[in-house]
Amino acid sequence: MDKDIKIAVDMDDVLAATYSQVIRIFREENENDYTDEWFEGKSYKEAFPGHHLEIAISIPHRKDFFDHLPVMENSPEVMKALCDKYDVFIVSAAMEYPYSLKPKLDWLKIHFPFIHWKNIVMCGDKSIIKADYLIDDHSYNLETFNGQPLIYSALHNLKETRFERMNNWEDIASKFL
Amino acid sequence: MDKDIKIAVDMDDVLAATYSQVIRIFREENENDYTDEWFEGKSYKEAFPGHHLEIAISIPHRKDFFDHLPVMENSPEVMKALCDKYDVFIVSAAMEYPYSLKPKLDWLKIHFPFIHWKNIVMCGDKSIIKADYLIDDHSYNLETFNGQPLIYSALHNLKETRFERMNNWEDIASKFL
Repeated sequence: MDKDIKIAVDMDDVLAATYSQVIRIFREENENDYTDEWFEGKSYKEAFPGHHLEIAISIPHRKDFFDHLPVMENSPEVMKALCDKYDVFIVSAAMEYPYSLKPKLDWLKIHFPFIHWKNIVMCGDKSIIKADYLIDDHSYNLETFNGQPLIYSALHNLKETRFERMNNWEDIASKFL
Repeated sequence: MDKDIKIAVDMDDVLAATYSQVIRIFREENENDYTDEWFEGKSYKEAFPGHHLEIAISIPHRKDFFDHLPVMENSPEVMKALCDKYDVFIVSAAMEYPYSLKPKLDWLKIHFPFIHWKNIVMCGDKSIIKADYLIDDHSYNLETFNGQPLIYSALHNLKETRFERMNNWEDIASKFL
């Protein structure tokens, strides 16, 4: 039990399967021959070449996008155990998507009801965050972090080698519990 | 010019005249004999005794409350000059008011259009914030802050003596510009 230790946890692609939802919607609505393997190790720009990029980027801006996001496997159970032991904050770079703010909060209330509103942060640039650990899928968030950065595996970051890697929520449980 | 210096600026009662708006609405809608002087130096609880407290606390939870908030005098001009010189973040404890998230962002876009979404933070507990300065009207936010805390004068904090005091936006200009 060490409530003095702060763990900041990203939301999209750590708690919520955001990128796979973008891929699913894109494939359903657009002519394409993208296989599952196509996306592995590719950045957003590489994964969606040409005019496909603009379409893909617009998908999370839809008003209802965040209403039905799937939860990452095992994240609720492990998060509950983390919250019992540490001072855990959700830190989401949500400001780019104004319509996501309230739906994201509602989504957290449904799937992670044990997280107090005091421990939820919606921001832009995460360099303003002070914590002991940051679990995030984006290298640019981890680069500016002063505590210990942990990269959560996502299709777009598989080539990144600078940060300790968490492949799934079982890895997070092994590290902290 | 020192963009390496981060200044975190609270929103309610520093950029926006939130408390005076609560007082105005309360007075209009409820039988009371509260004068302007009544509120000086009083906490929320002291200012609104008995069942009045519940009514006053409910006012900022209204869906349209944040749509029409007045701007604090001189704050746009001084903020613009601060943003040119420093790395300025808006840090608002907005999570308690889910309906305020989008309206607050819209309000900032109208009155402080020069602030990038990357520099806006909506949170609960501000102990997660890392910056060099925090300008805030609430002692409990300043107490947990690691940088230099600056208290922005509000009716409820006039008795507080632990923090360097900014009486208005001219004081902030004198300190930083």
